[in-house]
Amino acid sequence: MSRIESVHVRDIRFPTSLELDGSDAVNVDPDYSAAYVTVTTSDGETGHGMVFTCGRGNEIVVAAIESYGRLLVGRETDELIHDLGAASRLLVHDSQLRWLGPEKGVSHMACGALVNALWDLRARREGKPLWLMLSEMSPEELVSVVDFTHIRNALTPEEALEILRRAQPGKAERVAELRRTGYPAYTTTPGWLGYSDEKLVRLSKAAVEAGFGMIKLKVGGDLDDDRRRMRLAREAVGEHVRIAIDANQRWEVQEAIDWVRELADYAPWWIEEPTSTDDVLGHAAIRRGIAPVKVATGEAVANRIVFKQLLQAEAIDVMQIDATRVAGINENIANILLAAKFGVPVCPHAGGVGLCELVQHFSFFDYAAVSGSQEDRAVEFVDHLHEHFVEPAALEAGRYVAPSRPGTGAQMHEESLERWEYPRGGGWLEVGDRAAVNEMAGRQS
Amino acid sequence: MSRIESVHVRDIRFPTSLELDGSDAVNVDPDYSAAYVTVTTSDGETGHGMVFTCGRGNEIVVAAIESYGRLLVGRETDELIHDLGAASRLLVHDSQLRWLGPEKGVSHMACGALVNALWDLRARREGKPLWLMLSEMSPEELVSVVDFTHIRNALTPEEALEILRRAQPGKAERVAELRRTGYPAYTTTPGWLGYSDEKLVRLSKAAVEAGFGMIKLKVGGDLDDDRRRMRLAREAVGEHVRIAIDANQRWEVQEAIDWVRELADYAPWWIEEPTSTDDVLGHAAIRRGIAPVKVATGEAVANRIVFKQLLQAEAIDVMQIDATRVAGINENIANILLAAKFGVPVCPHAGGVGLCELVQHFSFFDYAAVSGSQEDRAVEFVDHLHEHFVEPAALEAGRYVAPSRPGTGAQMHEESLERWEYPRGGGWLEVGDRAAVNEMAGRQS
Repeated sequence: MSRIESVHVRDIRFPTSLELDGSDAVNVDPDYSAAYVTVTTSDGETGHGMVFTCGRGNEIVVAAIESYGRLLVGRETDELIHDLGAASRLLVHDSQLRWLGPEKGVSHMACGALVNALWDLRARREGKPLWLMLSEMSPEELVSVVDFTHIRNALTPEEALEILRRAQPGKAERVAELRRTGYPAYTTTPGWLGYSDEKLVRLSKAAVEAGFGMIKLKVGGDLDDDRRRMRLAREAVGEHVRIAIDANQRWEVQEAIDWVRELADYAPWWIEEPTSTDDVLGHAAIRRGIAPVKVATGEAVANRIVFKQLLQAEAIDVMQIDATRVAGINENIANILLAAKFGVPVCPHAGGVGLCELVQHFSFFDYAAVSGSQEDRAVEFVDHLHEHFVEPAALEAGRYVAPSRPGTGAQMHEESLERWEYPRGGGWLEVGDRAAVNEMAGRQS
Repeated sequence: MSRIESVHVRDIRFPTSLELDGSDAVNVDPDYSAAYVTVTTSDGETGHGMVFTCGRGNEIVVAAIESYGRLLVGRETDELIHDLGAASRLLVHDSQLRWLGPEKGVSHMACGALVNALWDLRARREGKPLWLMLSEMSPEELVSVVDFTHIRNALTPEEALEILRRAQPGKAERVAELRRTGYPAYTTTPGWLGYSDEKLVRLSKAAVEAGFGMIKLKVGGDLDDDRRRMRLAREAVGEHVRIAIDANQRWEVQEAIDWVRELADYAPWWIEEPTSTDDVLGHAAIRRGIAPVKVATGEAVANRIVFKQLLQAEAIDVMQIDATRVAGINENIANILLAAKFGVPVCPHAGGVGLCELVQHFSFFDYAAVSGSQEDRAVEFVDHLHEHFVEPAALEAGRYVAPSRPGTGAQMHEESLERWEYPRGGGWLEVGDRAAVNEMAGRQS
């Protein structure tokens, strides 16, 4: 009988801060990183999962995944992967570990990586990419993986089932369509705060030429800079390409309202993370204050319970699920069902390392088997670090190409893992351990 | 010049699950634990801090404190302890580590332990217990340690200053009074779910005889049991002693309303943690649904931003700050000021290990220098594990005795630390590593 034999976790980091890729008003110098886990069964099957982080602290997530992983080792593989709802609860609701969140932060993300590794194992066994496996699952099984704890006042299992059943007609056609034409993407590549005006304009034009219908700019550092950058971007892309803006939680509530109003002339499509993602009421106030500009958030929303409230309070126009923030695929199915219930489009957060590869699956599934719509929906795309993945995210004419390899998309090349394992991988030895160097410099300054 | 020379973290656990002390509807088998940190300067001064956990996962918090601790090593002691606002921001807002929360869960609690160790260092240097040092600080310095990020729409620095200045008159008299007569406590000792009816009644009567004006019962396991236990407790304590009830987040929103209404005949004073502490809107709905029974929460509230909303939404009657959930003393000062602004009493959460020793200081400070009131206020008391602390929490006639030793109360006896360091301390070798034993049993079942 197949059992979980080992849970192996690696600290993978990329020295992206050298290039200021990924710089915004809050994340000024990220080294995109992954706490990367491989679950191996006694039969030699594997499943992969990861948590994205910004560098320092990746080792904390590694430690957390190792701790939670001990709850899986020795268990029967089939029991876990054929009742992924129970597998998730086993981790998320462990009576002692629960205190560490509950259901938020490092411990919750660690659960997510392991839950996702089990989904990866199952998808690889079934020979299907995650999005297709999800799309072909029965509504009943999908509902069985969702943890309805603390969201039943917004979404009952019966309502979830009804949403999924309503989307059954036409599903096969939508799957075929997704395979032919993919799913809309938008790009953040032009808009990092660390980029020059010239680079912003050049990359904005390139984005339009590449077929993107929306680009995104980071804002919130300096209002005059934002006005200028927004004007330059608008001139570069023209009237009909959407420009989203993203403050990465930089503002107080009133400050957000005032700042976005100052940029209104350039018709931003949405403001993303105007303030703390914990602040449901603050988002609601901002949304009332800046309409018709939309409010989007989610990459840092801790769990389905906060998403529930953002919807109940009419605080968001766009739900931005993240592939590695919550407790895995189960919780993102809950989030997608909540969004469907409230009629809010899901536009997943991506970028970093591996997030495009992972999160695209949710939008393909959403179109095939939940909302059945692509209207006002797009998956973020940033052109970083895809080469490290066995199935790199692929775009054609501004649209994600449907993944076709079995699994969730998390698997990285073994040589990438070896080269960028921190701090002893060959890549890091070449770059020099800048963390240590910077720390020394910091102490001396 | 004095610098931070080392940050030493230990994994301390007590096998409390053997006795079912601390059992409730969610935390069924806690091993009360502490990730315990000692910061040592080049001059040999020390400061102690800790994070309380329920056992498994304590090692994750240890890893997190070690990681954050690296940001402190080598820095000037005076700079840190004389600008504790900056010291906190250095940890909480680290540009890479921030992603792990932001400001919630393991990473946030780890910051809190370190921030508190710095406060401990300062209080020991000044030769004062924390509560007295805080009470004697100028309103200006107190405001300078508060991080107003994302709470300015509820509390500005100017308003905080005004609250503190208003409490200056009479402060010396209140300090003298606190030293004479202490501060009200309530006890949870009678009410754990794992206790027999006989033990519940016996301990409830003992609590009244010991002078407590309020006891607390855990509820939420089974409604018939709760009705019976509530009736027995009410008969045991009489009409005039308050009985609070605590569901430890066990319920959905409507379930909480229905359940509490079923217990209304026995006049519960408050319901604590009726549902997920992330659910601000849920708490508001519950509060509307069960008045005049009050709603209390806080031991699992991640940060000041969630507390802010609980107050803005009129979702709580009682704020229950916890000493080791948030980013330390700074953030609890923010929480206390928010409560004062909204006119909500603060009744800190305690119990576990060390929480009584730590959290009492906040209520002494609140009375001396913020609210100036003891009305409807009390600090939780549970009679566990105090013997391990250098200054154990002390009660007289149902009231906490004012701590008099310098520091925050976190310091444990060296011999306790050695005996209960997990997994190799002498105490654990005697008990046997039950975690391992249970895990083996679990695999075989």
